[in-house]
Amino acid sequence: MPCHRSVKIADKVIVGGGFPVSIQTMWKEPLDSSNLMEAVKRIDGLSKLGCDILRFAVPDISAAETLGVLAGLVPMPLVADIHFDWRLALRCLDFPISKIRVNPGNIGASWKVKEIVDKAQEKGVPLRIGVNAGSLPKDLALEAEKGGDEERARAIVEAAEREVRAFEKLGFENLIVSMKASDVPTTLAINRLFSSRHDYPLHLGVTEAGPLIAGIVRNTAALVPLLAEGIGDTIRVSLSDSMEAEVQAGREILSCAGIGRAGVNLVSCPRCARAGFDTHAFTAKWASRLYSLKKNATIAVMGCVVNGPGEGRHADLGITGAGEKVVIFRKGKIVRTIWPDEADTAFEEELEKLHE
Amino acid sequence: MPCHRSVKIADKVIVGGGFPVSIQTMWKEPLDSSNLMEAVKRIDGLSKLGCDILRFAVPDISAAETLGVLAGLVPMPLVADIHFDWRLALRCLDFPISKIRVNPGNIGASWKVKEIVDKAQEKGVPLRIGVNAGSLPKDLALEAEKGGDEERARAIVEAAEREVRAFEKLGFENLIVSMKASDVPTTLAINRLFSSRHDYPLHLGVTEAGPLIAGIVRNTAALVPLLAEGIGDTIRVSLSDSMEAEVQAGREILSCAGIGRAGVNLVSCPRCARAGFDTHAFTAKWASRLYSLKKNATIAVMGCVVNGPGEGRHADLGITGAGEKVVIFRKGKIVRTIWPDEADTAFEEELEKLHE
Repeated sequence: MPCHRSVKIADKVIVGGGFPVSIQTMWKEPLDSSNLMEAVKRIDGLSKLGCDILRFAVPDISAAETLGVLAGLVPMPLVADIHFDWRLALRCLDFPISKIRVNPGNIGASWKVKEIVDKAQEKGVPLRIGVNAGSLPKDLALEAEKGGDEERARAIVEAAEREVRAFEKLGFENLIVSMKASDVPTTLAINRLFSSRHDYPLHLGVTEAGPLIAGIVRNTAALVPLLAEGIGDTIRVSLSDSMEAEVQAGREILSCAGIGRAGVNLVSCPRCARAGFDTHAFTAKWASRLYSLKKNATIAVMGCVVNGPGEGRHADLGITGAGEKVVIFRKGKIVRTIWPDEADTAFEEELEKLHE
Repeated sequence: MPCHRSVKIADKVIVGGGFPVSIQTMWKEPLDSSNLMEAVKRIDGLSKLGCDILRFAVPDISAAETLGVLAGLVPMPLVADIHFDWRLALRCLDFPISKIRVNPGNIGASWKVKEIVDKAQEKGVPLRIGVNAGSLPKDLALEAEKGGDEERARAIVEAAEREVRAFEKLGFENLIVSMKASDVPTTLAINRLFSSRHDYPLHLGVTEAGPLIAGIVRNTAALVPLLAEGIGDTIRVSLSDSMEAEVQAGREILSCAGIGRAGVNLVSCPRCARAGFDTHAFTAKWASRLYSLKKNATIAVMGCVVNGPGEGRHADLGITGAGEKVVIFRKGKIVRTIWPDEADTAFEEELEKLHE
């Protein structure tokens, strides 16, 4: 069931309550405190690609300090990911960190969890409970291991419910919940089960999803059906690849679930021996630029005369090979016929016109 | 509905009739006739990755000759993709080409189509009717343009049905059918509609699906639900990327549809600031080797102590960072603790043992 509750992430993004599903990614290396402007620049690029929320692992106190400083330098809401040491969460809450992800199971004594909760309450910062199928409490792990798929799903949901109850007892309900498994059927089952029982916003994802190709297939197969059912309020596509790839995949997943946002829809040919135009090189060179445009437009990068003109007809802007030349279309009309080495300049000019 | 008819591709692969769904890709550049052994080697690699059928565009007579020669050099069934000129199809049929893909709509006069059909009949070679949403006959294109999604789907299916009827009139039923669109809802609708009406094997794919990320998301979102419903007998994941990427994506899609084949299931961490081990570099280096193994095994490439050991427990072989060291697991038991620069050698040794 869609979630009615909503959680505010620093007055910038609202998760749940029927607000647009937000896209997250996670920083992949330690932050370089001596060069935070580099991070600021990269975050600006991620924002242009469609990233709404950015998470950072905080393995030690100096990571907390650096992240805290960075949070004051960028408009994007930053999230601290905390394991084991509750003091890291407390320190992060001294800075404009927009959300804390905790796994209360590995924080230890309940007074430590209470200290986090009290400070988050005071600061108005939401917490995300992040349960991973691979690290359940022992009794539930045993239940999950010996049971079938259904028992496994129930055990994972139960792990999340224990955490939710613990927070509720402390009077804290400013929560987002995630339950992640590394396979598609479990991901579908646990999110459907939880959303049928609770009204907390759900953060969807597949954990340890794998390298680029496997990871995108698994995330798509799991997230598209859930999102199409109205389940899921924010997503993170985990990939053993770049943050930019995760954000792009997230956008395409929202789009395939029928809840896409404004932006470029890029269609392109797989290339074959007929191709007079190298669609691979052209799309690789242009993808970031195109995905960073805010305009709703279909852009077609085609290889040859067999498929090119047909699809080009529907595109707001299209480029295709035609014999030795390259042709640029707008809404089916040929506007330029050029040599391949003029393609980039001509395409840029036509792209600019698209924005007039 | 699942297809009961089956079509034999050169006594090597059976498409339809409940046989395993086969994976195809398409050669992306003109064949170099002066160095066919290079192609033979690449095709062997594709076969190891899980490719069952390989298609080549045949834009002219010399391409037909070269492809014909290559077909005699490799065990993989090769398919000729013919547009416009029926003589190219006739020439291909002089060689051990396993299937011809035609778009009868652009072949022209019916006597030309009949010549192809007669020769294919005589040689026992199946034909694939390939209809693309972007190149429908004029009357149907008009219908598709002015209607909504349903009318559009009906127009595309009608285009395929016209071709099927034309072949049936010529007494030819050794057919595979594909209908491709560049978006997910149309791809779902046309294949569901066709399979509810006809019992010909279906070749599934999304046309002009886009660059790697967008293309994988769109193909997964369209193909997984169809395959899970039993619709589709062979697939080709079109990407503006390499053939190897298309085959890997195909395998993952079959796996997510619950009809995966033997082979390695690779799970891996997205990496974060906690990671003591570079999962991106390791998976990038090992992916082809791992995906070429015939063994059913789950292999986990993890970054750190938070997620690593949990997932490592389920993996037949796992590698993860642990502080400054790297740890190799087998079924949850640590078998090696090494330095990062020893990781490749140690992993190879453990991989070999997995096959004993």
